[in-house]
Amino acid sequence: MALFSMDVENLQQLFVEQLRDLYDGEQQITEALPKLIDKANSSQLKAALQEHLQVTRQQISRLDQIFKQLGERASGETCKGMKGVIAEGDSLVSKSNDPAVTDASIITSAQRVEHYEIAGYGTVKTFARQLGQNAWVQLLSQTLEEEKEADHKLSQIAGTINVRAREAA
Amino acid sequence: MALFSMDVENLQQLFVEQLRDLYDGEQQITEALPKLIDKANSSQLKAALQEHLQVTRQQISRLDQIFKQLGERASGETCKGMKGVIAEGDSLVSKSNDPAVTDASIITSAQRVEHYEIAGYGTVKTFARQLGQNAWVQLLSQTLEEEKEADHKLSQIAGTINVRAREAA
Repeated sequence: MALFSMDVENLQQLFVEQLRDLYDGEQQITEALPKLIDKANSSQLKAALQEHLQVTRQQISRLDQIFKQLGERASGETCKGMKGVIAEGDSLVSKSNDPAVTDASIITSAQRVEHYEIAGYGTVKTFARQLGQNAWVQLLSQTLEEEKEADHKLSQIAGTINVRAREAA
Repeated sequence: MALFSMDVENLQQLFVEQLRDLYDGEQQITEALPKLIDKANSSQLKAALQEHLQVTRQQISRLDQIFKQLGERASGETCKGMKGVIAEGDSLVSKSNDPAVTDASIITSAQRVEHYEIAGYGTVKTFARQLGQNAWVQLLSQTLEEEKEADHKLSQIAGTINVRAREAA
């Protein structure tokens, strides 16, 4: 017998827990992105991050829709994973004064954030399908595709920035 | 003028910094995996995690090869990102007593670790190519493919586990 109550005992509860984790992660991203936009030097990178900030807000509103339908509160979890990923990025980006190297560091950090989300949304999409909730599968797929697209776009921008970073200092 | 010395001023230095980050991340994984293997209930999941522990050791030895050729020390960075991702997983896995839900939580957590590594190895592979180091591109590609394969295998195992988790409690 457990000495204290466990709060995740079936797939639906795990689904809700993971959605809360993603919800908190997205909030952390909306706080972190403006700082990265400010530090970015390439106008193409600034624009891509700015666009992703808008997209993130839509992703939050999709999660809000699901929470509303579930009748569950959205807040309550702190995503330690995203906290670590963002802290790692902050520390890396502060290590360089060179504009191209700073931009390459921002891209690296942003791609880790994207992949963390790709894993998270991949999981909840699978859970939603397993729970027979096709409307949620659709909403979560849309976000998942946006995260993959953001990752791909960052890889493309990295192409030109890495050449400049190679020739720096 | 910077008030203190910046240590990442070109692509090669950023490459080394990122390799150190991955190196520390892999060390953290070799410490975390045995605990997850111990907690896993499905024999298929246990075997997959066990196999990944072996693969992780080979991945560390590939990084060692690159550090040797670079003439750089491998240690020195603490990967705050991986620390957060693992802490997040520990906390999630401790929330359930149900065997299938615990396994689904382990898979979710392990996939976040995999994706964090996919982002990291994707970056250093691109940097190595930019630096004209094809031998390193080969070594890092091999690891990147292994990480993607591990992620895919976990998704497959999740199929049967999620059905059990749905019917739990």
